[in-house]
Amino acid sequence: MNDSAVFAPGERTRVRRRAERVSYDEAAVFDILDSALVAHVGYLFEGRPVVTPTAFWRSGRRLYWHGAAAARSLRTPASGLPICLTATHVDGLVLGRSGFVHSVNYRSVMAFGHGRPIEDLQARRAALDAFLERLYPGRTAELRPISEAELKQISVVEMIIEEATAKVRAGGVKDLPADAGWTAWSGVVPVSTRLGPPAPDQALGPQGALPASLAGAEGRRLDEALLAWARS
Amino acid sequence: MNDSAVFAPGERTRVRRRAERVSYDEAAVFDILDSALVAHVGYLFEGRPVVTPTAFWRSGRRLYWHGAAAARSLRTPASGLPICLTATHVDGLVLGRSGFVHSVNYRSVMAFGHGRPIEDLQARRAALDAFLERLYPGRTAELRPISEAELKQISVVEMIIEEATAKVRAGGVKDLPADAGWTAWSGVVPVSTRLGPPAPDQALGPQGALPASLAGAEGRRLDEALLAWARS
Repeated sequence: MNDSAVFAPGERTRVRRRAERVSYDEAAVFDILDSALVAHVGYLFEGRPVVTPTAFWRSGRRLYWHGAAAARSLRTPASGLPICLTATHVDGLVLGRSGFVHSVNYRSVMAFGHGRPIEDLQARRAALDAFLERLYPGRTAELRPISEAELKQISVVEMIIEEATAKVRAGGVKDLPADAGWTAWSGVVPVSTRLGPPAPDQALGPQGALPASLAGAEGRRLDEALLAWARS
Repeated sequence: MNDSAVFAPGERTRVRRRAERVSYDEAAVFDILDSALVAHVGYLFEGRPVVTPTAFWRSGRRLYWHGAAAARSLRTPASGLPICLTATHVDGLVLGRSGFVHSVNYRSVMAFGHGRPIEDLQARRAALDAFLERLYPGRTAELRPISEAELKQISVVEMIIEEATAKVRAGGVKDLPADAGWTAWSGVVPVSTRLGPPAPDQALGPQGALPASLAGAEGRRLDEALLAWARS
């Protein structure tokens, strides 16, 4: 793997402990990001941290999110201040024979950079279409195109990832051998986020088929679906 | 409802738009927090925002989270700097007849305050036991107690909620009547996070029954289970 496929650890991301859970590998970072629909964006507002949840998407080392142009949660991160975007998957409850070994299985990425707004309307439209296509391939061809007036009501923020780190806790409980005499239930209860049954809205009359990415997807894991759609 | 059951909107939480999605009501804030296992804690490190995922729990207007005592992600938030803790549930994909009306159904809370470490070892033990009991009622009686040496390896951060706001997007797609001629599929695909089949760990030999809170819980929604456990 060459240098360009590793996020160099910086002061904020260099890990001092539990290094077995951590990776700066670009593929590991991208897999966790691409499996997530929502991230938490941390930014400064009047010197204090604010953490906003948002849907997001990725293109190369660039991350994007959007919202109402008037929203402070978009304007502030787009203003060039430092940003930390974190995406997390909860994968399981880990129970052991002492409180000390209880844990949570998870995958997360912290990505650091600076935000900028996408000012150009055509670039903004292209970014929004890329988000729709990332979730629902082919869908933009079926949709009423976003008008210029609508485009002006939407802000899109772009952040180039300057540093990133992936952290993963997976596998079973790590009971201490000395605790063998305690018989409390020990093990892992998996947790997964899944798609439910699609509920069509008939308010405007007849409609077409489900997007191909959602057809037959009831019960599918959302993280696996998102990753597959991103790679398609 | 009296004043004590409302989080007064401050400069960071006062909402300027889409007010129908927002609540400062204590019950709404507590329900969303208590339905979540993991939150994202935003804090400043060397003047920059860092967002760390963590399991957390609530007691009254106090939030708690814990980790390795040596971890910067615990030491820094406990140092009295301003913190924003955000918890989010993703409830559905909202698809409409134009990109403009696509959305995500979600529930989130942003809570602001300042962190402090729980230094006293007995108070720390009580807080950790409260977390275990919140998830698995009755379990602390079955576990090998946490030793004093272990307690010293764990940091617990306490944050009194000074301001908080709940935001919710629920319900169906809001297609524009003018888009009736477009037949792209329109509706909501629900998303839920659920418990899977428990996987016992036999490495240390015989073990007892599943905690009552997890018995028969396979397939149950995690948010609903967490809320019920918090209220039990």
